[in-house]
Amino acid sequence: MTPLVKKYFLKLPQASDDDKTPDLERVLAGLRREGLDVESAPVSVIRKISSALRDNNFEVTATVRLSEKPELIGVESGGRPDNFGIAVDLGTTNIVCSLVDLNSGSPAGIPVSDTNPQTAIGEDILARIHHCLNPGGLDELRLAAVGCINALTEKLAAGAGISAGDMPCACISGNTTMAHLFLGLDPYNICRAPYVPAANRFGDFKARDAGLNIMPEAPVIVLPNVGSYVGGDVLAGILASGMADREGISILVDVGTNAEIIVGNRDWLVACAGAAGPALEGGVVSSGMRAAPGAIDRITIDKNYKPSFSVIGDVPPAGMCGSALIDLLSELFRTGLIDGRGKFIPGRTERVVGTESGPAYRVADSIFFTEKDIENLIRTKAAMYTALTVIISEIGITFDDIESFFVAGTFGEYIAADKAVSIGMLPDIPLEKFRLLGNSSLKGAVMAILDLEAIQRIEKISSMITYKELNASAEFMSLYRAAMFLPHTDASLFPNAYKLWL
Amino acid sequence: MTPLVKKYFLKLPQASDDDKTPDLERVLAGLRREGLDVESAPVSVIRKISSALRDNNFEVTATVRLSEKPELIGVESGGRPDNFGIAVDLGTTNIVCSLVDLNSGSPAGIPVSDTNPQTAIGEDILARIHHCLNPGGLDELRLAAVGCINALTEKLAAGAGISAGDMPCACISGNTTMAHLFLGLDPYNICRAPYVPAANRFGDFKARDAGLNIMPEAPVIVLPNVGSYVGGDVLAGILASGMADREGISILVDVGTNAEIIVGNRDWLVACAGAAGPALEGGVVSSGMRAAPGAIDRITIDKNYKPSFSVIGDVPPAGMCGSALIDLLSELFRTGLIDGRGKFIPGRTERVVGTESGPAYRVADSIFFTEKDIENLIRTKAAMYTALTVIISEIGITFDDIESFFVAGTFGEYIAADKAVSIGMLPDIPLEKFRLLGNSSLKGAVMAILDLEAIQRIEKISSMITYKELNASAEFMSLYRAAMFLPHTDASLFPNAYKLWL
Repeated sequence: MTPLVKKYFLKLPQASDDDKTPDLERVLAGLRREGLDVESAPVSVIRKISSALRDNNFEVTATVRLSEKPELIGVESGGRPDNFGIAVDLGTTNIVCSLVDLNSGSPAGIPVSDTNPQTAIGEDILARIHHCLNPGGLDELRLAAVGCINALTEKLAAGAGISAGDMPCACISGNTTMAHLFLGLDPYNICRAPYVPAANRFGDFKARDAGLNIMPEAPVIVLPNVGSYVGGDVLAGILASGMADREGISILVDVGTNAEIIVGNRDWLVACAGAAGPALEGGVVSSGMRAAPGAIDRITIDKNYKPSFSVIGDVPPAGMCGSALIDLLSELFRTGLIDGRGKFIPGRTERVVGTESGPAYRVADSIFFTEKDIENLIRTKAAMYTALTVIISEIGITFDDIESFFVAGTFGEYIAADKAVSIGMLPDIPLEKFRLLGNSSLKGAVMAILDLEAIQRIEKISSMITYKELNASAEFMSLYRAAMFLPHTDASLFPNAYKLWL
Repeated sequence: MTPLVKKYFLKLPQASDDDKTPDLERVLAGLRREGLDVESAPVSVIRKISSALRDNNFEVTATVRLSEKPELIGVESGGRPDNFGIAVDLGTTNIVCSLVDLNSGSPAGIPVSDTNPQTAIGEDILARIHHCLNPGGLDELRLAAVGCINALTEKLAAGAGISAGDMPCACISGNTTMAHLFLGLDPYNICRAPYVPAANRFGDFKARDAGLNIMPEAPVIVLPNVGSYVGGDVLAGILASGMADREGISILVDVGTNAEIIVGNRDWLVACAGAAGPALEGGVVSSGMRAAPGAIDRITIDKNYKPSFSVIGDVPPAGMCGSALIDLLSELFRTGLIDGRGKFIPGRTERVVGTESGPAYRVADSIFFTEKDIENLIRTKAAMYTALTVIISEIGITFDDIESFFVAGTFGEYIAADKAVSIGMLPDIPLEKFRLLGNSSLKGAVMAILDLEAIQRIEKISSMITYKELNASAEFMSLYRAAMFLPHTDASLFPNAYKLWL
């Protein structure tokens, strides 16, 4: 694997009367001896080269962006072996960053995340696109995301004992609108007919232009889109799943603020965006939160209707992430606390209390799961299942034809496939076919930093994808209504659902 | 000839439900129909593309930097046929700018010039290099030059009725130190042993990084150096002369603040920098000035010792440019007002007056030519002739072997070769061998904008050049002393000098 950037430690001959090679050409000659044919360097790099050479006896570390035409992007005095890039999942609701060790070829340490501060400016994508109509609005959103990425990068750098300014590359994976906002591109036409982005593929972007506080000439790869509805985050997921390399048909479901569904194999790929809604990402469900320290990630309910749960990190519970919500819905139904429509059955336990927003199950002090939350979650699972049903029927296959079913999303590494099947969110196929990908958007971004070929593969994937509109049809609405039941109004579709609770 | 940049007027199909091509890819498809394979565009260009398309019914002008891998550097709404680049002779003393019409393939209008404002910070190169040791000194010098170029560009744009912001490229031709200062590169090691520049070849530089107020992504070509003593201005001159394409041997003398001499043909080139000094550029001679409106450019003295002269522009005389100084020295000697050492012979005419700085010839009200000026000019001409003698003798040829003798410099288009020979500044060879190039640094910059191949030819020229040190030898000093006479202490070297006055 050829990483995006490599650092070369060069012990160069000193300038003398017999060797008047200029400073830049001296470094380039050193790189040629390493087999690298670099033509020149950005002026900002040449500006620092003379003192870098003389500060440490003509021993320097040259940072080179590898490609057909390699680029010298930094020259620093002495040896600087550390070589960490930064991979970013730029989600609508959450931003997640991971260090990537370009020397060892793997992610380094635990990713860090924060709420995307754009949510304070515009809760959802549409609100943000409208905010860009205000003078300076686009830049405000851009800088909010950039500031958050910088803060997370700083946190990762401090944790690893390195300097953010030494990091030589970044890769940003986000949906089409998020990529536009990050790049400062007007997203207006993404949400207006005929729904065209400003661009699908973005030219070279440097950290200094992006506003990222890493090495100024560091390349910032923003993963390409396929169109307004299929963004780089989806392409990253397909790459991370490997489904586009397989002969058998796979499904990839990426549940973020929206749910994207991809079906296909190495010969064809069909994508659609479901109307899943953000119920699973925290924010919509009253006690929902990101899969971060303090989040309950798994729950069971015992025969006395008492919950037991695990919490991410060694802290008291502060809310529930998506996987816990799915568990809880499944458990409330299994234990008979709610009916198939998601309504509480009165008088079973004092755990079900009255709240301002109606009846709710009390998970812990101040953590409640309300009937309204349940309704939201049932909408989400119904939309997901309906979208899956419609897309495979349009393609002309059945769930039996599926060889692998990838589940991705910020909470994707915690989700229990059996529980998701039991509430009728995912189809009732053999459990061993499910593969939890975790944050596949982030994983794809990591791969794009670690391997130059990853971008070419993403380009190839992008050229294979056909996008299908789903939500418009009357058939969709009728199927959707039928799926608004636990696990489904047609129980024959979920023969194994009840067994999953054993 | 392929120019550096071309503008393409594109009438593109409108976005529709049947054609959801993103905005950038729509423009790139339009360029493909013109035979141009452009991969992407800088983010700053994509930022403007959506409104450019929609402001004028999907009719846009795309500005493309042509190269092996063409680059889209601007997209504007509607038709913008004007396509003017800016060529800059960035001299130590003077800055000269010319518009270049990339459509017609020729310079447009009359160049404009101004004193390099860096002279106010540091009179000569050495003072400026020392100034860079002060914090912020380098940037101060850089911005002084950039500000002057912007002002001259604005002037040219206003004169041509175009907008500077539409200009898609610039080429800067200067000596090695001037190029470093323009690029913000530390020039410190240029003047310290072993005299190495930060770089000979500079990577891509964009107008927005250079601080030039033309199109933000416009390429700014800074011509390469050969080393500390042979800069891009000399390479530009060699290119403009065509001497590196000829079989016969040529000499090129570029008299600016320093005098550079190049000897050679299509197989070899030898360069040396003479110690000519700035006497001919104005500033050192008391009534000297740039070849600009108000400058006397030609002078004769009649039998009554009265001068008659021509002035550049329809204005009263304000001083004398280099060509007039050479004329005047020749005429003062011919008419017997000075002797062979340049001293006034007393009592000949009341035109020779006493001034604060000693005896002087009065050319016009407040325009005097003092004995001190004459001394400076004789030093200059002696240094020039000596350098020419030494270099051809080191090469092993004589002046008879010279097929063409190119005279370049800001005043080079006005100089009278016969007068320069008559004072012993240029060798006494058949007058028809002299070719006046004018500002060859500027001409080379114009060529680099008009023809992509010009840069390749400059690279080739640069690889052919051998640099010779001249001033160190004892022989040089002895020859120099012998040349401090009009025309020379050895009159046999100038058999035709007196005939030139007839």
